[in-house]
Amino acid sequence: MTLIVQKYGGSSLGDADGIKRVAQRIISTRKAGHQVVVVVSAMGDTTDELHDLALQVSPMPPARELDMLLTAGERISMALVAMAIANLGFEARSFTGSQAGVITDSAHGKARIIDVTPGRIASALADGAIPIVAGFQGVSQDSKDITTLGRGGSDTTAVALAAALGAETCEIYTDVDGVFTADPRIVPAAHRIPRISYEEMLEMAASGAKVLHLRCVEYARRYAMPIHVRSSFSSKEGTWVTHAPDPQSEEDAMDQPMITGVAHDRSEATITVSGIPDKVGVAASIFRTVASASINIDMIVQSTSRTTGQADISFTLPRQDVPAAMTALRDVQGEVGFTSLVFDDSIGKISLIGAGMRSHPGVSAEFFGALADAGVNIRMISTSEIRISAVVDAADLDPAVTATHRAFGLEDGETEAVVYGGTGR
Amino acid sequence: MTLIVQKYGGSSLGDADGIKRVAQRIISTRKAGHQVVVVVSAMGDTTDELHDLALQVSPMPPARELDMLLTAGERISMALVAMAIANLGFEARSFTGSQAGVITDSAHGKARIIDVTPGRIASALADGAIPIVAGFQGVSQDSKDITTLGRGGSDTTAVALAAALGAETCEIYTDVDGVFTADPRIVPAAHRIPRISYEEMLEMAASGAKVLHLRCVEYARRYAMPIHVRSSFSSKEGTWVTHAPDPQSEEDAMDQPMITGVAHDRSEATITVSGIPDKVGVAASIFRTVASASINIDMIVQSTSRTTGQADISFTLPRQDVPAAMTALRDVQGEVGFTSLVFDDSIGKISLIGAGMRSHPGVSAEFFGALADAGVNIRMISTSEIRISAVVDAADLDPAVTATHRAFGLEDGETEAVVYGGTGR
Repeated sequence: MTLIVQKYGGSSLGDADGIKRVAQRIISTRKAGHQVVVVVSAMGDTTDELHDLALQVSPMPPARELDMLLTAGERISMALVAMAIANLGFEARSFTGSQAGVITDSAHGKARIIDVTPGRIASALADGAIPIVAGFQGVSQDSKDITTLGRGGSDTTAVALAAALGAETCEIYTDVDGVFTADPRIVPAAHRIPRISYEEMLEMAASGAKVLHLRCVEYARRYAMPIHVRSSFSSKEGTWVTHAPDPQSEEDAMDQPMITGVAHDRSEATITVSGIPDKVGVAASIFRTVASASINIDMIVQSTSRTTGQADISFTLPRQDVPAAMTALRDVQGEVGFTSLVFDDSIGKISLIGAGMRSHPGVSAEFFGALADAGVNIRMISTSEIRISAVVDAADLDPAVTATHRAFGLEDGETEAVVYGGTGR
Repeated sequence: MTLIVQKYGGSSLGDADGIKRVAQRIISTRKAGHQVVVVVSAMGDTTDELHDLALQVSPMPPARELDMLLTAGERISMALVAMAIANLGFEARSFTGSQAGVITDSAHGKARIIDVTPGRIASALADGAIPIVAGFQGVSQDSKDITTLGRGGSDTTAVALAAALGAETCEIYTDVDGVFTADPRIVPAAHRIPRISYEEMLEMAASGAKVLHLRCVEYARRYAMPIHVRSSFSSKEGTWVTHAPDPQSEEDAMDQPMITGVAHDRSEATITVSGIPDKVGVAASIFRTVASASINIDMIVQSTSRTTGQADISFTLPRQDVPAAMTALRDVQGEVGFTSLVFDDSIGKISLIGAGMRSHPGVSAEFFGALADAGVNIRMISTSEIRISAVVDAADLDPAVTATHRAFGLEDGETEAVVYGGTGR
């Protein structure tokens, strides 16, 4: 009997009917001969509503108390799912993150899982019960305080539990059919990707694809846990996130498309520091300043004036971090000696992802050509072995995504079945 | 520095403004030089709303999961109170029942506290933080499952914590000014009782007074913990529930009123079993049948017919238990051999409570006289050393309460200040 971990998101658990539908699906999996462990998010918008309540009471709620508050959401949904399963004649037992053995560090609001000791989950399975576990939460190793894992945390809980229990698969149920070659709201011809490697999925997630969160995919890759992203509103196959195909295998090589998909991100901004004196260590002190404000920067461009010798540095960062970064940089302006500081939050980032591009040197040329043909001006560029990203004006982002998706033949949904075939695994 | 445990009920925590007001009151107590531990209920109607949600998912939710669900309510309110305190510049730390060391038996929905090990609360106090504890909940000793204590459970949590921490006082904040000589909605002239003994309060609670729950008063009496019941909407003195006055002390004897108050209860019903054969053990088998359905009966009246030798037995029980009791009794009708079974849920119970009545034999006569003068027919009677109760028609209950309150001079609110004086302690 194989073990499957299933994770259901808030959109699948919107109300009592949604909870009953999820219970039915869990029972079907059980009746199909599998052991099942379920991880749940909070119902619908519960987490946002609790957050609003916190802000009504305090503009700066302490992180420890915010975590205590927000974890009430999963407690509610897990108990209700357990009740709905019991009502169908099966035994279910709900467990908080702490009871399920999800041990984290003490970084409230963005804790990292450092160990999973699922003794009570294993006992429940041995008793024939279906364990229902609260996602998104754990307990800190040092202070035994309740922690939350941050955005996408329930997915990470599911993968971590699946790894600790030696599950065969981790199924992530959501309100879309899987991972797509581009956002279907921008590119209606985008199609579902039947199978994607952990590395490509990491690049997609880091580039703005919202279906799976970065940390969850990192965890799955580390433990080689196959993820099946699928819709809780249908029984269709979704997207399998799994090991990279073996290029030595003829079959795998045939299966391998050059380009996997096009991701976009509207959540970033740029800051440009101008008139930086031509002295050793100045650029380093600028980035140290930003880093010490706990801000992660993404892309960097430096240009130096031939006449003055002075440099300009532009970098991208999450839009929400702009105020903190601007404040930190203004504080060191006198000491560092740059002349001006401006930010621009009307930018967008487009990324082309595909493991095949490392063996096809023409990909960047074709990408930039497609953007030029669409009249899109490129402001910054960064690349990895399996990704090319470009920063463009926010207004150009949709046309850029559409043109790129078309230029690389991703619209041809018909080839999908031929290229990937079967169940996608 | 003395330690005070304060408990705030759901009506005091109805919304963000209520929570901020409670935080202000906690800080005032702290600024007055006391250490404070706070116990909170769920906000407003949260517990009822969660219960409704459970019934939408399952008509018979498992007790373990219902407890898991309902305890989310206190988790929300305690985190919000901690945030509101932090916003006023003091450190607060919230703790679940489990974290606060409230150990219970495994009777989900009506668990009993069997131990309190408040190590984390003591540490928080030592650190100068204000601990905020979830009322109504604990963790079972055997299975480490989350339990709830049943109705009035947060009051019990507060008294149990106060006892375990060696607090000076347990303050129970509610939406009324204290315990009254009768329900002011029935008797507008009813007045606040400044001081009442544990024994009288137990009789009041058992007779339908809703301000404090029976189990909480039992706990306070066992540990001699003074309770101060007061309003969270004013700073007025409320009612002190404490040891009985010493009758040897002249001052205490003067303080002691003969009658403390009039309680009433609309939540009961009667069942009458008629035509019971005149055989040894038949009455016992009837009560055994009811007890084995986990139903507590209150008053009993037996009458025997001179002509047939057959007996009729009537007893009172909680109205909600009538269906279960009727079913259990019908099942044994053939075996026991009684002729008929009827229930009546249009009854009410009035109780007169006062420690002074044990030395005043005329009290019952005066009580029955008052009821007779008001035209109220008495159907059943029971007495203890400090209480007389009568079952009457439901329609007669309000006139009975008003007449009794007047007959014993309880309306004279003016004498209160003279009799009790000062702070009531």
